[in-house]
Amino acid sequence: MKSITINLPQSEMPRQWYNLGSELSMQPPVDAAGKPIGPEALAKIFPMNLIEQEMCTDPWTDIPEPILDILSRWRPAPLRRAVFLEEYLKTPARIYYKDESVSPAGSHKPNSAVAQAWYNKQFGIENIVTETGAGQWGAALSFACSLIGLKCKVYMVRISYDQKPFRKVMMNLWGGECVASPSTETEVGRSILAKYPDTPGSLGIAIGEAIEAAVSDETGKTRYSLGSVLNHVMLHQSVIGLEAKKQLALAGEKLPDVIIGCAGGGSNFAGLAFPFTLDKMHGAEIDIIPVEPEACPTITRGPFAYDYGDVGCQTPLIPMHTLGHDFIPRPIHAGGLRYHGMAPLVSQAIVEGLFAPRALKQMECYEAAMLWANTEGPVCAPETSHAIAAVIQEAIKAREEQREKVIIFSYSGHGLLDLAGYEKFMAGDLTDYALSEEDLQASLQPISNYPKP
Amino acid sequence: MKSITINLPQSEMPRQWYNLGSELSMQPPVDAAGKPIGPEALAKIFPMNLIEQEMCTDPWTDIPEPILDILSRWRPAPLRRAVFLEEYLKTPARIYYKDESVSPAGSHKPNSAVAQAWYNKQFGIENIVTETGAGQWGAALSFACSLIGLKCKVYMVRISYDQKPFRKVMMNLWGGECVASPSTETEVGRSILAKYPDTPGSLGIAIGEAIEAAVSDETGKTRYSLGSVLNHVMLHQSVIGLEAKKQLALAGEKLPDVIIGCAGGGSNFAGLAFPFTLDKMHGAEIDIIPVEPEACPTITRGPFAYDYGDVGCQTPLIPMHTLGHDFIPRPIHAGGLRYHGMAPLVSQAIVEGLFAPRALKQMECYEAAMLWANTEGPVCAPETSHAIAAVIQEAIKAREEQREKVIIFSYSGHGLLDLAGYEKFMAGDLTDYALSEEDLQASLQPISNYPKP
Repeated sequence: MKSITINLPQSEMPRQWYNLGSELSMQPPVDAAGKPIGPEALAKIFPMNLIEQEMCTDPWTDIPEPILDILSRWRPAPLRRAVFLEEYLKTPARIYYKDESVSPAGSHKPNSAVAQAWYNKQFGIENIVTETGAGQWGAALSFACSLIGLKCKVYMVRISYDQKPFRKVMMNLWGGECVASPSTETEVGRSILAKYPDTPGSLGIAIGEAIEAAVSDETGKTRYSLGSVLNHVMLHQSVIGLEAKKQLALAGEKLPDVIIGCAGGGSNFAGLAFPFTLDKMHGAEIDIIPVEPEACPTITRGPFAYDYGDVGCQTPLIPMHTLGHDFIPRPIHAGGLRYHGMAPLVSQAIVEGLFAPRALKQMECYEAAMLWANTEGPVCAPETSHAIAAVIQEAIKAREEQREKVIIFSYSGHGLLDLAGYEKFMAGDLTDYALSEEDLQASLQPISNYPKP
Repeated sequence: MKSITINLPQSEMPRQWYNLGSELSMQPPVDAAGKPIGPEALAKIFPMNLIEQEMCTDPWTDIPEPILDILSRWRPAPLRRAVFLEEYLKTPARIYYKDESVSPAGSHKPNSAVAQAWYNKQFGIENIVTETGAGQWGAALSFACSLIGLKCKVYMVRISYDQKPFRKVMMNLWGGECVASPSTETEVGRSILAKYPDTPGSLGIAIGEAIEAAVSDETGKTRYSLGSVLNHVMLHQSVIGLEAKKQLALAGEKLPDVIIGCAGGGSNFAGLAFPFTLDKMHGAEIDIIPVEPEACPTITRGPFAYDYGDVGCQTPLIPMHTLGHDFIPRPIHAGGLRYHGMAPLVSQAIVEGLFAPRALKQMECYEAAMLWANTEGPVCAPETSHAIAAVIQEAIKAREEQREKVIIFSYSGHGLLDLAGYEKFMAGDLTDYALSEEDLQASLQPISNYPKP
């Protein structure tokens, strides 16, 4: 049998989450005066049990049993080897991918959605409000809220709402409500629409709307939820890498030589990479590559600075790579990668020299996705295509170097609700977008007035 | 861990296909005069190696290694237990499902598509023409042809083509060409359009178009392919039940008490049921239930008779349950179940009293699909929802009888490209369709002139 799938027995599911923050010199979130904020400053936004997790510096946290019960519907996720892509590329590299597309919502997002919904429910919360880019997070949170018994409302970035109409249907069938952002329902939305009536929207705007909607509910039974960026989201996603480590061992491999994941807010990349990053800190030679779109080059061109997580400036100032919180990325199809910032944990690890970020063009990524579908078979999400394009680059490099490298990447989601993008690509209607230095500097202007990390 | 998934190791993949026909009193296909047809009568339609397989009466056929190589990308498919649905229904039954939605094309269809593409390629064929209802088969064959190196053209039933526009994109990205049927490209299509310009189309029409397109290619390098009904398709699908048998044993279960599958042409149902049917013939007490829509009640209301497989009467006369080859089912969303006939193997087993067919209404099936999504999580195909609705009926019956039954069903495909149907259901825009006795008799009229089985 040529194909190789490594299924981890359910009894081997990780029972603890891993926190890379315990190893890094993390800077705290601060207020406008530069003073570190305490848990109470976030109490209207998140439930206190998740705030504690956000601020926790322990390396390991036990996963509550009811969360394991739900995760085990699709976890452990398979580790597969891309034998047919290897053959096509004539590479001596062995390419593995962690298949997170097998979750009911179709991506890695439910790993954190289930945990967040459960902690909110435990804290007595009844309604969750969130934002979504490509729709993966909104679908995942709707799914989790359905199973756990919470109401869910989703502000979806306008461009993705229009490009991917069935994402809304998916949220609806799990009981979630979905509105296009910017909307007329919030101050943040109305003020943006007044200035830019035709805006494609952005994650920063949608986050602003969702936070406003959550904190303005006077019953106290509503909280906000974020699908990436934050420490506790990175924590929940660590099951990806923890499983992958065991699976690589089952496949007879030692540590990988190259680890690749696409990075929007950072959760999918971190989920795979962080458990291996500790090995790198202890001396293992691993190239760890977060991949982003050139149209939203947060970690390749954005400075490490204090900035807000949203357009409405309702979050604390967060230490991260950023393009400026007002940055509105061009309408590429990888909606999940259109965020102006990057997870503080990923950002700090970049500052400490642990990762080698890479930015790719949209067209190259679609070409990679087409090659993937016609060698391995599956249709990948446009976000995931960024990882695949970088994998192809690395596999070709291994061929040129004649080195038997082990490459592993996170197959973050399927593209079955993103076929409109493929249709445009095949019709020749897509293009690349580059960010000019002038636009970048303009967008970075506000952060020069903030405290420095 | 509450959830239960039983993964069979890849080394345990079945190496042979099973043919139930070896146990049944099969009637041969005949010509209009009632004379059994020989292989040569099919030689312009199918490659000879598949015709031999179609007529083979051996119980077991070795699966060629290159086919196993491709199947092993997603096979063995997981067997899962629907613990959360069981809990919701408060049933003592244990409900297992064979998850065929994990294939790259999203259904069980690639099991036969890969085999058919491979045999065609071996025979020197360069182009395959086929039809598709819901689009699952067209996508599966496009996928298989991409991997094996053949050109693929698909006639897609108009109603599904309109309801599921992204199915075409999926075929395209694997290199397949897709046109709505009836089309103006064939005699069959043009004559239907002249009579019924607004027809939603049917599988019988699309099959007629595809056969005409295949046999009229004078290069001799084109053949037709059918995704269900035929003996060799049932053969290829037997991997489903053969795997499931091993997995049930791994789960500590003996034979199931109830086996359920939705049945359009019969391939998904047969795939799961046939390997267990032999046990039933040897005395095991198993209720085996093929489920069809009330709008297309082939096996619950259609007689067992000789009829054509297509509107164009280009196939031999086939012994099967049929509603008449001119029957055009109402536009229900389960496009894969809109076929006037039923596989001769399934039909003969019904005649021999082995199966207990059931017909269900569309609305009940959508309600079952919604319950499934909000208990187990995944979004199922509208075809699959017919199996789930019957499973719910059987689980409730087990509760009423206080019996710990083992129920297994085939989860034939996901519904991620069928969200338009869910959208209409949630908006209250769907309805049930019943077939009147008068319409049924009118549609059966032509077959009274054919030979009798």
